[in-house]
Amino acid sequence: MRAVDLIRKKRDSGEHSSEEIDFLIAGYTRGEIPDYQMAAWLMAVWLRGLNRSELAALTEAMLYSGAVVNLSDLPGKKVDKHSTGGVGDKTSLILAPIVAAGGLTVPMISGRGLGHTGGTLDKLESIPGFNVNLSLGEFRSVLRACGMALIGQTAEIAPADKKIYALRDATSTVENIGLICASIMSKKLAEGIDALVLDVKTGSGAFMKREEDSVRLAEVMVETGKRMGKKVVALITDMDQPLGRAAGHSTEVVECIEVLSGRGPADLRELSLELSAWMFFLGERTKTLDEGRRLAETMIASGQAKEKLMQGIRLQGGDEHVVDEPQRLPKARFRAEVASTSSGYITATNCEQFGIALAMLGGGREKKEDCIDHAVGLEFHKRIGDRVERSEPLTTIHYNNDAKLTEAKSLVAASYQIGDSAPTQKRPLVRRILGP
Amino acid sequence: MRAVDLIRKKRDSGEHSSEEIDFLIAGYTRGEIPDYQMAAWLMAVWLRGLNRSELAALTEAMLYSGAVVNLSDLPGKKVDKHSTGGVGDKTSLILAPIVAAGGLTVPMISGRGLGHTGGTLDKLESIPGFNVNLSLGEFRSVLRACGMALIGQTAEIAPADKKIYALRDATSTVENIGLICASIMSKKLAEGIDALVLDVKTGSGAFMKREEDSVRLAEVMVETGKRMGKKVVALITDMDQPLGRAAGHSTEVVECIEVLSGRGPADLRELSLELSAWMFFLGERTKTLDEGRRLAETMIASGQAKEKLMQGIRLQGGDEHVVDEPQRLPKARFRAEVASTSSGYITATNCEQFGIALAMLGGGREKKEDCIDHAVGLEFHKRIGDRVERSEPLTTIHYNNDAKLTEAKSLVAASYQIGDSAPTQKRPLVRRILGP
Repeated sequence: MRAVDLIRKKRDSGEHSSEEIDFLIAGYTRGEIPDYQMAAWLMAVWLRGLNRSELAALTEAMLYSGAVVNLSDLPGKKVDKHSTGGVGDKTSLILAPIVAAGGLTVPMISGRGLGHTGGTLDKLESIPGFNVNLSLGEFRSVLRACGMALIGQTAEIAPADKKIYALRDATSTVENIGLICASIMSKKLAEGIDALVLDVKTGSGAFMKREEDSVRLAEVMVETGKRMGKKVVALITDMDQPLGRAAGHSTEVVECIEVLSGRGPADLRELSLELSAWMFFLGERTKTLDEGRRLAETMIASGQAKEKLMQGIRLQGGDEHVVDEPQRLPKARFRAEVASTSSGYITATNCEQFGIALAMLGGGREKKEDCIDHAVGLEFHKRIGDRVERSEPLTTIHYNNDAKLTEAKSLVAASYQIGDSAPTQKRPLVRRILGP
Repeated sequence: MRAVDLIRKKRDSGEHSSEEIDFLIAGYTRGEIPDYQMAAWLMAVWLRGLNRSELAALTEAMLYSGAVVNLSDLPGKKVDKHSTGGVGDKTSLILAPIVAAGGLTVPMISGRGLGHTGGTLDKLESIPGFNVNLSLGEFRSVLRACGMALIGQTAEIAPADKKIYALRDATSTVENIGLICASIMSKKLAEGIDALVLDVKTGSGAFMKREEDSVRLAEVMVETGKRMGKKVVALITDMDQPLGRAAGHSTEVVECIEVLSGRGPADLRELSLELSAWMFFLGERTKTLDEGRRLAETMIASGQAKEKLMQGIRLQGGDEHVVDEPQRLPKARFRAEVASTSSGYITATNCEQFGIALAMLGGGREKKEDCIDHAVGLEFHKRIGDRVERSEPLTTIHYNNDAKLTEAKSLVAASYQIGDSAPTQKRPLVRRILGP
């Protein structure tokens, strides 16, 4: 078998056997197939596509390119959630403690933010001392001790994905449903889970702007997960506006603590309960979804979820007192208001622009090696459908450096569309549920 | 400007500006853009295509990636011929002496054979002592002394093409009309020519098997050459069977000497006169094509073309006595006959297979670094339309090593189609003429 012939096959819309895909992925991971051949193949895949069995083979080849965690010695089902990313999307920090407190094990391997989206690891690192870089052995002992652990991708987990992702990033071959699916699923399946809840974002703040694209991605991820013998559900959820009231690292951690304390914004609380319910249900902790939802509510109301968060932070080296004293988290020195220039109703937001504005202020990265300012953030006062008066604040910007403040303010201001009447259509938070 | 954005643009069927193409080609030639980004771009180009102005920009960027020879101090017009390659295609060694003897300058930078096709440089190297690796300075002095010089691509000429071609070869992005055109034309235009005659082969022994593909390639090459201010004509010529009676390096040199001596096979003589006529006409040596043809015939009949070949060989270090004593050329030790297994008429040949059989016997290369046996060859006794009797020889194989002889014999035998009646359709040698 030769890489050049496999590139030609995909270029000419041929279908790869699983042996061919294994050859490419294993050869590339070992450094026997050079970057330039993989780059040509990825572009051919981007333009010609992968069918379902090619996708399953690719996911499997990437999954078995490294270690697959075996958690069968830990009690109970192992369940995780993955979100495709958005602005203010912070549910992992809420779900993990709720579900672990409820008796399941949550082995969460997360990512960093890139472009306009935030990443769980970056948010966790706004907690002083929190260490996301555990070895697989440490990961396992934290899981055993408290039922949850939140870490970054280790060198052992899906090394093929790590190498391929970096190449895709440099060759404009990122936004392809098959490649996205294989990347996500190979990492998630390597965690040793029994069940997976997928939160596939759709709308102006998501990678997939159109609902039909989000549904297609959800379908292939659900099918791929099921082929590998996992219980999988995908919720298509709204990202036409930020989730919750806060975007930015420490401000999002504060908002998560609010929800775990029985407060917090309604949409964030609602989505967190819904996702927790699915995790309990797929993890066979409850017989029904409703029962799962009630269990999640109990974990919040009883304070057990908040306790679990504190325990998790402590076990990963972080300052657990931030939970009761959020002022211990980094805070930006300055604030600026973005006020409305007209009166009316918010009819839409260009949600991606909020993420870009945040990144501009230092709260995100353009390139992987960029450093993040965990203290900067955006605080949203209005949601789609809300009434707003001229000069009333729409967003408060928390910032440390005003080098790009003017630009960021304009971006935020321009992201709001204000009309004479509220949109009549109700916007469900969960648009569709696939695959359970 | 960033390479990753330009890859995305082409991936999404965007049109590049000439600045963008310059950025990519110059950056890649200097090593600032890595192989993997160029590979992804090439695959995107392969699948999305280049329009006429992108193609002109690409050709120009590749042309100016290195030295462009200026021959304006030499008298008369400079004219060259380029063939897209085939089996037994040896006209360069005939045209250059005819046209130089007729008073024009022929600065010919040629290539080596790859796959099933032969290359001019390899044929020249079957002449003892002949040196194709001249510096540009030596090239110029040979041209000044005798009006013709035949050399290989130097490091100074179109270095972008050299680097990109190697990458295309490894990434299955070779067979694309735009990329082929840019590669050929950038090298040819760097020679300092005024006019170019393109011999675009079509048929079972050509890279382009279908006439419409050959015509498309011819059209874009003619247009690209004209945009650069050159006189260009393209002849679409038959490659459904070998040109002449011989394929193989020294055997082809012998056949060229035959033609220059007023003998040789009719088809080879005919095409050589036709191409010479176009070179004389485009090079403004004659007022009409007919006059050009008569001048070519005179150069042969008077012995001046043969004299010119001897002078050219001598000036490039070769043994010019091969012209009068062809036995000085390498000769294979053994012969084998491929005889017909039935009686009838030759209705078609799978011409590419002859080239593959020749390569198998050592007379071609699979990989660039392979060595060539200049002595092996195929001698064709029958052409399409000829009557053949059972057991009558179709091809004589001249070989040195019988390791793959059986395989080569089967390939040759299987390449002939024999039917009950001769094909009624006349097969013109020159199918179409474009662009004059």
